[in-house]
Parts: sequence; structure tokens; C-alpha cells
Amino acid sequence: MTKIAVAGGGSIGLLLAGRIALAGKPVTVWTRAEAQARALAASGVAVCGASGETIGIAPVTAMTLDQAQAERDPAHVVLLAVKQTALSQAFLDALRAAVPPGAAVAAFCNGLGHTERLAAALPGRHLLAAVTTEGARRTGPAAVRHTGSGNTWLGDAPLFDGTARDAAVPADPAKLQIVEKVLKEAGFTAIVSNDMAERMLRKLLSNAVINPLTALLRVPNGQLTATRDRLRLMRTLFDETVPVLRQYGLPNDPALWDELLDVCARTAANRSSMLQDVEAGRPTEIGAINGAVSRLARQAGLPAPWNGGLTALIEAIPGDGGDV
Amino acid sequence: MTKIAVAGGGSIGLLLAGRIALAGKPVTVWTRAEAQARALAASGVAVCGASGETIGIAPVTAMTLDQAQAERDPAHVVLLAVKQTALSQAFLDALRAAVPPGAAVAAFCNGLGHTERLAAALPGRHLLAAVTTEGARRTGPAAVRHTGSGNTWLGDAPLFDGTARDAAVPADPAKLQIVEKVLKEAGFTAIVSNDMAERMLRKLLSNAVINPLTALLRVPNGQLTATRDRLRLMRTLFDETVPVLRQYGLPNDPALWDELLDVCARTAANRSSMLQDVEAGRPTEIGAINGAVSRLARQAGLPAPWNGGLTALIEAIPGDGGDV
Repeated sequence: MTKIAVAGGGSIGLLLAGRIALAGKPVTVWTRAEAQARALAASGVAVCGASGETIGIAPVTAMTLDQAQAERDPAHVVLLAVKQTALSQAFLDALRAAVPPGAAVAAFCNGLGHTERLAAALPGRHLLAAVTTEGARRTGPAAVRHTGSGNTWLGDAPLFDGTARDAAVPADPAKLQIVEKVLKEAGFTAIVSNDMAERMLRKLLSNAVINPLTALLRVPNGQLTATRDRLRLMRTLFDETVPVLRQYGLPNDPALWDELLDVCARTAANRSSMLQDVEAGRPTEIGAINGAVSRLARQAGLPAPWNGGLTALIEAIPGDGGDV
Repeated sequence: MTKIAVAGGGSIGLLLAGRIALAGKPVTVWTRAEAQARALAASGVAVCGASGETIGIAPVTAMTLDQAQAERDPAHVVLLAVKQTALSQAFLDALRAAVPPGAAVAAFCNGLGHTERLAAALPGRHLLAAVTTEGARRTGPAAVRHTGSGNTWLGDAPLFDGTARDAAVPADPAKLQIVEKVLKEAGFTAIVSNDMAERMLRKLLSNAVINPLTALLRVPNGQLTATRDRLRLMRTLFDETVPVLRQYGLPNDPALWDELLDVCARTAANRSSMLQDVEAGRPTEIGAINGAVSRLARQAGLPAPWNGGLTALIEAIPGDGGDV
């Protein structure tokens, strides 16, 4: 039986692990903190539905990533559900030690920058990119609420460090199918995509507009569209970001703006992950979101003063830890 | 005896009224809210020193600005200590009705824009500009703490709506002397200046860097200089703002940057007025500070993207009321 590991004990990590385990597959969760691993091993993952009803308690194996390196029987499918901010060199080294060559690694990270770093850190592994619109909220170290169903796209991991479109790490199609099957059997709508760059760029666009503005204005997503002042800010940032991402494969889709408004409407009461990070004094993913747009813009010779300015502002908030 | 009125029951208004009354001069305080006028009339202004020790209870007359219009014996010296955000057309109309031609009006407002509006609204009155570095904190509707001594510059009110330097409303020197005397007798260090543009621009520079950054990052003044990230932001904003203000009379003074760092150090524990406004959900003075720098830049044909961007961001914070 394919040995499956989920790296990361946050919302998406617990959702993936919980749903896969509830579907009867053995799963190991790799956490950062030993305390969370102990809690997960002791009680399993409590998975609730959108209105809080219990869906099931999913038994899982759990350990820290360091402990995973000592496993005799390593995982051959790894779902990587950590923040960009977790991808330190130490983490990448530990991941390489825990994941054998030939294994499939599907990265669910937000933003850009992780595919290049993972491709460099994990030679010989089959790197995949995943983008999900599933909604989840971690409600405790071993509890997650599945707040909304969505789609999960899966495919070869694109690279954005050149100006060439469609650069990607080619993964073995058989590995892609295994990951797709794992997700489908767990009840997710998994869609194999041959253009993950587009999927990642669409999500990046949405994150690049919603996250920094909600974090600086300290408003839930729905408040962004509630005044003309804020809509103007969104539009300015959108208009600056779209031409940059177009250079890397974002399609010329006139519906992009309406889709963005739609995300705000559907997630109106949500506080974006960046706002939550700012409020909790944690590092944010700004460098992988608006910072990434800035880098892509520079690479393409396009201006991106708003992306650069917002990155500098968010990085200067206490707790972001970009600098001490 | 010169009848003196202080318009505004905030920190500086209560400090001015309290100190003048403690020096034995009758003072009337014009407030926005009737409740504050009643509290002041009932108990006087309690003036405390920096460490909270009582300096005195200053008996004052108090009424709303609307009530002041009905006074038989109007004030001939008016110290205007209100926020820029208070200068609505209704307020200006009421002020014109309460202040007779020939009276002296010394405006203690932060930022720019008020001198032009007051000059237009108060024809025949002697408009003066005042800039103070006195520190004060209102601790109740009728109580103020004098947190630090400073200087108060006083002179003809400059106008910034053209690109010509040194445009100012010429006031009768005798009126200037009367206001100077009132302040000196109240114990303030009053300095008559023949270049209030420079004084206002120096203060504007400091406000334009410190206020929006502390308000967005939600840090006290001293935290602005605590990390390289934040210092870089300050420097970027400073470097953009100085060339603009130079066009209007800010001197080419190499000490400006060090003075700014010095303000942060001296007021390290203070939360800027803009941060306080943001935290309390009140309108901020952003339009008269960074918004004014933007307007001056446009007028002079200079770029000011940071001033414009920060203005748009602060105006989009709930409560700023720039737009609903």
C-alpha cells in the first residue's frame, strides 16, 4: 500500500490528512512541533463540517519531520501543506532526508517561489504543484473544520525563475495519477491540469490583491468591496499585477476582475491568512505573494510600485520577522 | 481687556485655555459637543504636569461654537486648536459668525490646507499661523496633562495653493504682538517668525513620515526606528517628501533626517495622533498631511507615489470616513 504523508499540521494539512484517513488510508502527519504530533497521535484528527457537525475522528500516525527521517519505510506520496514561511533551508534539508528519491511530492503552498526551491532541494523526487479552493479552518492542534468544498488542481510544478512560459518540472504521469487517486478516494474533486502555471497565477492574483489590503486595513475579505475607496485600491493593485502575471501565463481573461469580487463575496466574513498572521504577530507570506509579483515584474521589466510598497509595509509590521 | 477664546477642546485646546486661565486671563472655550462645554463650565480645566501632579484648576467659560455666535461681546483673540477634519463648511460658517472682523485668529492646526480655507472663510480677520511643539494629552473632557514643554512659533499665515514661495496673509503686527503676549503671559515660549511656511513645512515633513507609518504598522513612534525595514520605509518616504516641500520653502537643511530620528526618540512611547484616530475608528488628518504633500507634488510636477499610496490606504481604513 502506498505510504502517504502530509507535511504540515495547519488547516489544509489537517483537512487532507483527516479526509484521507477517514477514507480508510493510513496517513502520517509530519508536524513542526512535537506537541502537535503527540496530540494527533493520541486523538486522531477531528474533522467537522461547515456548521460544526462532527464528520469523523480520523486515526493518524504523527511525528515531527525530524523523526520522519529515521523511518525505515519512508512515505512515497507526500502532500506538502506548509506555509512558504516554513520553507527554511533546515526544513528543506529535513524534507530531503525524509522523502526518498522516486517519491511524489505535491506542494499545496500559496504564492510563488516554492516550486523552484523544492525542485532544487529534492532532486530525483517527482514534484507536483497543487492548488486548492477547499475551505478549512484549524480549530485546535488536532481538529479541523471543513468550511467549504472546492476543487483541487494538480499537475507538473511550474517554474517562474525565467521569463519563458511553461517551464515546469516534468513528473512521471503514473505518480500524478497516484496522487489524484489518493485525493479522489478521500472525497476531493481532484483535477489533473497540464497548465498549473495558470492555476497558480490565478490564485496568486487573488492573494496579491486581497491579502495585503485586508492585512493593512485590518478588515475581513467582504469589507474590501464595501467602499469606493477600497475598491479603487483593489483595482489599482489588480491593474498593476495583471500585466506582470500575463507575462508568465495568466490568460487574458476579462472575467478576472469579477472573479476577484466573487471571492470577496463568497468569503466575506473570512479574515485572510495574512490578516490572521499580522494580528497574531506571525511572519506572513508577503514575500511569496506581492514580493513574488515584484520579482516577476523586475524580471519582465515592468513597474510594480504597489506590490513593492505593500511588501515593504507588511514586512515592517512587528512580527513579520523579515528583519529584526 | 482682550477677550480670548480657544476653539477646540482637545489636547492643545485645553492646554492653551488652561494655561491662559491659570495666568489670570478670562478665557472662553468653544467646543463641538455641548456636554464638554457643560463639563468645562462646571469644573474648569484641570491642568496636570508631566508626571501627573496637579498644576491647577483653571476656571473657564465654555460653550459650543454655535452658542458663541450669540455672544454680545465677541472674542478678539481666537486660538484655533481643532483638527483639520473639523474644518467643515458648517464649522467655517459658524466660526465666521462668532469671530468679528478685526479679530486675530491664530490657527494651531497640523498639516496644510487650513490656512487657505480659513483665509477664504474669514475675510477681514487677522489670520495667523501657529506651530507648537508643546506636548499635551487630554485625559478627560475637562482635564489635560502637559506632557512636555516646547516652543510655539507664530506669524503670518502662509498659503500653499500656488507655486510661489512666501505667499502669506499679511496680519497687523499689533495683532501678532497681542497673541504673542497672551501666550508668553501664559508661560509658553512664543517666538514670532517671519517664515511660518518653513515652520509648517518642517512639522509637515515629520508628520508625513511618522503618522502614516505608525498608523499602518500600528506601532508607537519609537518602534519606527527599531528595525532596518522600518527605517528604510521612513527614508523612502522622507526622500520622496523633501524635494516636494523644498519647492515651497523647506530649507536645504542636512539635519532634517537626524531631526526626524530625534522626534521618534523623544516621543518613543507616544502613539501618533493618526494611529490613535485609526485605533479609535475616527477620521484621520491624512488628507491634510500626506494628501497635502501629494497635492503640492502635483502642483510642482514632482512624483509622490508613496504619499499618494499611503493616503489611499489610510483613507480606506474603516472609520476614516473619506468615503462610505
